Amino acid sequence: MMQKVGIVGLGLIGGSLGLDLRSQGLTVLGVSRQWATCERAIARGIVDQASPDGALLAEADLIFLCAPIAQIAPTLQALVPHLQPATIVTDVGSVKAPIVEQCSPLWANFIGGHPMAGTEAQGVEAGQRDLFAQRPYVLTPTDQTEPDALETLSTVVKSLGSRLYLCEPAIHDRAVAWISHLPVMISASLIESCLGESDPAVKTLAQQLASSGLRDTRRVGGGNPELGLMMAQYNQAALLRSLGAYRDRLDELITQIEQQDWQSLGQTLQLTQQERPHYLR
Amino acid sequence: MMQKVGIVGLGLIGGSLGLDLRSQGLTVLGVSRQWATCERAIARGIVDQASPDGALLAEADLIFLCAPIAQIAPTLQALVPHLQPATIVTDVGSVKAPIVEQCSPLWANFIGGHPMAGTEAQGVEAGQRDLFAQRPYVLTPTDQTEPDALETLSTVVKSLGSRLYLCEPAIHDRAVAWISHLPVMISASLIESCLGESDPAVKTLAQQLASSGLRDTRRVGGGNPELGLMMAQYNQAALLRSLGAYRDRLDELITQIEQQDWQSLGQTLQLTQQERPHYLR
Repeated sequence: MMQKVGIVGLGLIGGSLGLDLRSQGLTVLGVSRQWATCERAIARGIVDQASPDGALLAEADLIFLCAPIAQIAPTLQALVPHLQPATIVTDVGSVKAPIVEQCSPLWANFIGGHPMAGTEAQGVEAGQRDLFAQRPYVLTPTDQTEPDALETLSTVVKSLGSRLYLCEPAIHDRAVAWISHLPVMISASLIESCLGESDPAVKTLAQQLASSGLRDTRRVGGGNPELGLMMAQYNQAALLRSLGAYRDRLDELITQIEQQDWQSLGQTLQLTQQERPHYLR
Repeated sequence: MMQKVGIVGLGLIGGSLGLDLRSQGLTVLGVSRQWATCERAIARGIVDQASPDGALLAEADLIFLCAPIAQIAPTLQALVPHLQPATIVTDVGSVKAPIVEQCSPLWANFIGGHPMAGTEAQGVEAGQRDLFAQRPYVLTPTDQTEPDALETLSTVVKSLGSRLYLCEPAIHDRAVAWISHLPVMISASLIESCLGESDPAVKTLAQQLASSGLRDTRRVGGGNPELGLMMAQYNQAALLRSLGAYRDRLDELITQIEQQDWQSLGQTLQLTQQERPHYLR
């Protein structure tokens, strides 16, 4: 019988989990590095108790690790000495295979998870009720996963109102590569290529038109292949020019990822992030 | 003094222009090939009078050609015998240089235009009030354009509540290549590459996750470059696989446009159009 839930990391995802689970009558125990965050989480009603000390989770039946991807395994490692063997541990990271590979040897009762919900808000003020309702929540059990533990975690996920999907970690990662990670890189290349326009009159007009919103793009992209074809036929030269510049940026970005040039990729994502409102809405 | 406005083509754009201009007290004369459309346009209050016969526009001060891109110059040519020399003619096509090149020799008082507004609706039932309000409306005068005619047309465009932009036809075409035509082709390639996923488990999960909406993509694309970088670092192999497949589809599409293989491009746009709801919202 599930009674106590631990949450490590009290930002958008952790805070939203806390609010929903407490509303179900569960006792929620929070862990965050900063005392100020712990106090604020208690004041907001996200958790019943909170502390920077993982020992608080000694009696938790289920723990959600809501740390950034790179911190999930280290966070679990630091927590292990405090836990009882029956405790189920899950995470909320948006990639699964590397996390499951790192965490399974640390904790037999680990099951990877990915709630596909969020807003742009961050921090202890960001948590909100019903963030996960009607949203996909993927769990990635392996051959070693205890069926009872999976059953228990699945029940909790469904109690959030989420749409539960179960799959292998690698299948999850390949699916989100298509629908989440690839679109991010494509948008970044698109914005970067627009930024490279050398004619100031073209660049200024493009930004002015884009920042007014692009309802007629939706008309083309969404409902009218004939119009898309007409655009290609009648604007062939300009379109090929833009497509060529776009492909060059895309090639650069692929090379950055292949060569693990994370510094350049980070700069690209930072820049295109800033410029995004000028080109895409 | 502007009193009578002609509109050729009474679909979404022509119908919306008619509704707005009649509400200003102007007399609106409509031309459409089908009598049934003419009657319906009168019944909806889009026009005061309508006919399949271009002779109806003999006394028009200003005429909007709201035909598909390929029909604009032929439509103007058929209309020329009916017009008085002072009549200003404009169009609403989404590319400008080829249309201005074709139409200017046919009619000295021709000025290219592009109202950047629309919905997916089509036909005589689609026209609506205030479609152009707060939306960009580009006019593309040339060295030969009469300043008085441009002034008159600009006043009408501003009366619709539109944001007026003036530029050369080629500048318009290069700007919309970036912000309208390029994104259409990128979306098509994205969907086509997702469709090519060979593992049914990955493909099914990707469609399920995508059709539930992708709020956490917005979180990444919209507000968090660090998260984008993490995805690339921790999902490198799957992301490179998707990026590679995507680049192949993009290259094919570029080749189709370069070689003017409009049949293949049309099939691509038709297919990705149908599949779009499974992958993008």
